[in-house]
Amino acid sequence: MNKVRIGIVGLGNMGSGHAQYLIEGQVKGAELTAVSDINPKRLKLAKEQWGDRVLTFESPEALFRSGAVDGILLCTPHYDHPRQAIDAFSCGLHVLVEKPAGVYTQQVREMNEAAAASGKVYGIMYNQRSNPLYVKLRELISSGELGEIRRTNWIITNWYRSQAYYNSGGWRATWGGEGGGVLINQDPHQLDLWQWTTGLMPKRIRAFCSFGKHRDIEVENDVTAYAEYENGATGVFVTSTYEAPGTNRFEISGDRGKIVIEDDKMTFWRLRELESEFNRTNTNAWGQPEIWKCEIPVASGGAQHKEITQNWTDAIMGGTPLLAPGEDGIKGLTLSNAMLLSTWTDNWVSLPIDEDVFYDKLQEQILFSANGKR
Amino acid sequence: MNKVRIGIVGLGNMGSGHAQYLIEGQVKGAELTAVSDINPKRLKLAKEQWGDRVLTFESPEALFRSGAVDGILLCTPHYDHPRQAIDAFSCGLHVLVEKPAGVYTQQVREMNEAAAASGKVYGIMYNQRSNPLYVKLRELISSGELGEIRRTNWIITNWYRSQAYYNSGGWRATWGGEGGGVLINQDPHQLDLWQWTTGLMPKRIRAFCSFGKHRDIEVENDVTAYAEYENGATGVFVTSTYEAPGTNRFEISGDRGKIVIEDDKMTFWRLRELESEFNRTNTNAWGQPEIWKCEIPVASGGAQHKEITQNWTDAIMGGTPLLAPGEDGIKGLTLSNAMLLSTWTDNWVSLPIDEDVFYDKLQEQILFSANGKR
Repeated sequence: MNKVRIGIVGLGNMGSGHAQYLIEGQVKGAELTAVSDINPKRLKLAKEQWGDRVLTFESPEALFRSGAVDGILLCTPHYDHPRQAIDAFSCGLHVLVEKPAGVYTQQVREMNEAAAASGKVYGIMYNQRSNPLYVKLRELISSGELGEIRRTNWIITNWYRSQAYYNSGGWRATWGGEGGGVLINQDPHQLDLWQWTTGLMPKRIRAFCSFGKHRDIEVENDVTAYAEYENGATGVFVTSTYEAPGTNRFEISGDRGKIVIEDDKMTFWRLRELESEFNRTNTNAWGQPEIWKCEIPVASGGAQHKEITQNWTDAIMGGTPLLAPGEDGIKGLTLSNAMLLSTWTDNWVSLPIDEDVFYDKLQEQILFSANGKR
Repeated sequence: MNKVRIGIVGLGNMGSGHAQYLIEGQVKGAELTAVSDINPKRLKLAKEQWGDRVLTFESPEALFRSGAVDGILLCTPHYDHPRQAIDAFSCGLHVLVEKPAGVYTQQVREMNEAAAASGKVYGIMYNQRSNPLYVKLRELISSGELGEIRRTNWIITNWYRSQAYYNSGGWRATWGGEGGGVLINQDPHQLDLWQWTTGLMPKRIRAFCSFGKHRDIEVENDVTAYAEYENGATGVFVTSTYEAPGTNRFEISGDRGKIVIEDDKMTFWRLRELESEFNRTNTNAWGQPEIWKCEIPVASGGAQHKEITQNWTDAIMGGTPLLAPGEDGIKGLTLSNAMLLSTWTDNWVSLPIDEDVFYDKLQEQILFSANGKR
């Protein structure tokens, strides 16, 4: 293979963005050869912009079967990702799916199974995995610099969305249209990074979602979740869309100190010796371990979508490991589903969640929805 | 009355501290005239230090009935506060009780009732209520500068206590000796300030305590609590004693922006107009309210015990309003009791709590305790 011929499925905000950098040749070894959209206006615009360089299709199915592409970027609405990805795999195509992987884990598990059976390269657009801040955090944790993790705390409330935003599309913030609110639409990166940087998935979650708080919508836009991990650590995840200004502060405390990421800076309060070791040997009732405040250097740039597309292209061309394997998409979604399920059942949710129960509860929301805005 | 004659009950760490500034005449209108302690060594030391200036008594009861004092500072173990305060009120004395008010709300309610019936001046040593940071925060909230509160979030994990600390006294960190862990011993100020600065008590709480985490103790030393308020706001309170370095960060978000207190500094991100008003009138899907980052000036000093003692003395002498009325002690204790009760029952706790249920659960802990360290 000389070049990976790429098709973009869905020319909304994300799809158009991917098309732009591909057309400009910013991804080595990749070529945009086809697009599809169910909206004729968008296809017309694509033809006007790109002429014969890019084929246009009125459906994903037609694009998949055109022979014009080796892989696809899937930029359709959340609910459609799994069904369309499974179809693409069955056509022998590689797939890079936009986040979130899907709306409920049942469908995403099926997508993962189809990907594995196909042997094709399957990635997910977790571009924040190339953000040097989180790459560094993951490295500090996995290398043991922070010691065993004892607590995680992410306040991510800087997703300000006004009522005008919610009113800008009939599908927005509806159970039927998007399958949820802040968790499924704004937080997929943070939910992924919460587990990817720490290497920890909770064993159980107790969460408290509010629906339509300070906004006329039916889905959750305010969440506080408490998590317990296998190693005894605990975690908190707080998110909302109505706070101005919100906060984006991720604190992780471990046996060797504490790391805080806030305002795009990383600070590591590092203990000279492990806390557990200090505690074991210290005999002074008011003794405190020695702490060094360290400002951690972090590379600039990163976190761009084209880096993930480049990595996926490289994986297709030469077997480069994926930074964001598609299979990982189910992890953040599991956290998101668990938070809703805990609220709906007013109880603990153990992970992995019971995907049938979640599916049924989601259907109830859709059924009792006023089909859009409340 | 020319001077308020004060007796100190209990000459441990706190009692000795109060005695020192009183002996030095740092509280106008107050005079230390008597002390009591059940430990003869401490009384001997008091006699050596102060000679005839200060009478010494082997029991609180004897001090209360000596006629030598007009009011007492109650610095005995937590469990003893209510019984001894009630006795003091019955002897016609004013009372300033150390924090916490007691261990369970039942006994503190009885203390409050006795105080009200006595008509005496009844204060509690919430010296952080004179900390200019929290005085300013309370003022910004009560004056409406922050708008209606939407979220509170206090991470107060900088209570590092090693095993050597817990081993330094047989009563420490036991159900029978202290009646709890970080909530009753380290957090009383924060639990009080959480409600005093905001003017909000939760309507219900769901909390998750860990007992003896990373320490060989039987009581809670790690807590995450979620709170819901009557006005729809939510809150989180996270505390622990094993993290190094811990965090002390209090964030309050309201209709007019966000205030954060951290590192003894206060920042107010103020919205030019109320968020609710912006949201009502904004028509731009990606519109954001205008935010001003304001560094709020805060007076230096404050938060000293002698300020509370001075205020209580002034209240006795001339009717000055109390900064920390004794009756308020039950509020922070209710939060503390609710967090334990929610954990023990693995369920929501509505406020005010069922004080009988809490009392029974506490007795169970004491009964099944290994009588001290596990």
